[in-house]
Amino acid sequence: MDEMTIKDGVENVQLLPAIYDDYGGVVVELTEHMDPTVFLTRLKTSMSQWTLQGKKGVWIKLPIHLVNLVETAVKEGFRYHHAEPDYLMLINWIPETTSTIPANASHRVGVGAVVLNDKREILLVQEKNGRWRGANAWKIPTGIVEMGEDISEGVIREVKEETGIDTEFVEVLAFRQWHKVFFGKSDLFFVCMMRRLSSDIKIQELEIEAAQWMPLEEYAALPYVEKESLMWYTSELCKAKVDKGYSGFSPQPVTSFFSDKPSHIYLNTRDLN
Amino acid sequence: MDEMTIKDGVENVQLLPAIYDDYGGVVVELTEHMDPTVFLTRLKTSMSQWTLQGKKGVWIKLPIHLVNLVETAVKEGFRYHHAEPDYLMLINWIPETTSTIPANASHRVGVGAVVLNDKREILLVQEKNGRWRGANAWKIPTGIVEMGEDISEGVIREVKEETGIDTEFVEVLAFRQWHKVFFGKSDLFFVCMMRRLSSDIKIQELEIEAAQWMPLEEYAALPYVEKESLMWYTSELCKAKVDKGYSGFSPQPVTSFFSDKPSHIYLNTRDLN
Repeated sequence: MDEMTIKDGVENVQLLPAIYDDYGGVVVELTEHMDPTVFLTRLKTSMSQWTLQGKKGVWIKLPIHLVNLVETAVKEGFRYHHAEPDYLMLINWIPETTSTIPANASHRVGVGAVVLNDKREILLVQEKNGRWRGANAWKIPTGIVEMGEDISEGVIREVKEETGIDTEFVEVLAFRQWHKVFFGKSDLFFVCMMRRLSSDIKIQELEIEAAQWMPLEEYAALPYVEKESLMWYTSELCKAKVDKGYSGFSPQPVTSFFSDKPSHIYLNTRDLN
Repeated sequence: MDEMTIKDGVENVQLLPAIYDDYGGVVVELTEHMDPTVFLTRLKTSMSQWTLQGKKGVWIKLPIHLVNLVETAVKEGFRYHHAEPDYLMLINWIPETTSTIPANASHRVGVGAVVLNDKREILLVQEKNGRWRGANAWKIPTGIVEMGEDISEGVIREVKEETGIDTEFVEVLAFRQWHKVFFGKSDLFFVCMMRRLSSDIKIQELEIEAAQWMPLEEYAALPYVEKESLMWYTSELCKAKVDKGYSGFSPQPVTSFFSDKPSHIYLNTRDLN
């Protein structure tokens, strides 16, 4: 397409390609290379038009190969909203009223797996990297859930990757919220009870130094387990689950008017029923 | 400082200001304006030096006023890691080995408050904006926790803001994980039981159309509550809490070797003790 068209003797500048959302917002998604001066002209014209139309938030999603347009957008009043490896999202709130721009993601979600065998032993690993490297500390298998992954799926994947053990998700025993863990952001860590489906340990050499089944009471008595609250709670939860029928939160499917995407609510099903 | 210094007749280019972390990483934090050509020279020299030193990840944090340097960094092989309104974080992984770059935040954390009075009535609001606007639907007060805010603090703040009611946090009754809610990111929503500390409703005019105390059975029988899973579970959880002593997850303080930042683990304290 031509960037400019002449119509009725008046120079018309094309608006930027955009989708109007239900909240008075405008979403610009650019994919084709564009000269920054052309982008500037089209952006100014588009913003005037959208201001006249009473639009509120204007979003510009710039793939990383259009990095040459970032400076222009910022100089026109856009601010960063969020970024992923391959794109940057910018936002400009037009009205004088308070912005209702949705917040950026604030938390990373971690999972830890409690897996027991039929000899009252717990599955533990020694990590090659991370906070505990070099300490030879035994800990439950842990990891970070991937984008779009359920807690219950992420923990199965991590146990399999680190130890080769197949498991089934039972319930969340507890979770911890922890702030300023990375770049000022927070962490939600879910301790999950798993049902063991296989026995043979096969460690992932890259991340894991060793893995073993350890008697639960031996684990609970390790000096660092007694001192590190989260480890201590994990061993206590484990004993409470086995010996006292502790009830955590297990997932139930939920539906919504607003989405056909499947999702789950985690709750104390024993107490609810 | 001079960008270049002459020493022993050899032109020396200053490395970029950087901090070396414990994981073989380099963190560059720039604050002063810099010409992109000067930045390019210093970046190339720094990267050569850090590669020789066996460094792994190189981070560059660019405040938004240094947006003129973003294009140069990307052309030198940096990728976006994350962004907040006032800065952009870029990353470049030097070694051939698999990257251990920490994941970006993937979840937003929402809270909903169950507040009852002594007449078995539940506190409900009608929102002016959001998904339910125009539907005149009654729902529990909800909101998004702020950066660094505990779930238990965020829910107290939201109830106060929306309805003027003072509350105390009791426990998490349930939580829902929901994917692709915004920009491909996920949402964790915590339904929280609160203890009411005051009675007089004073709504926030900007966001809230109306607020009232409604008999629990009347709320449970609303047609949209019966059909919307999360609302249905909320009313069921509420009845189970009042009538059957349902036990959710309540917070306990935890400490760690690795941090003096306070944090909390949420668990079924009744079953644990």
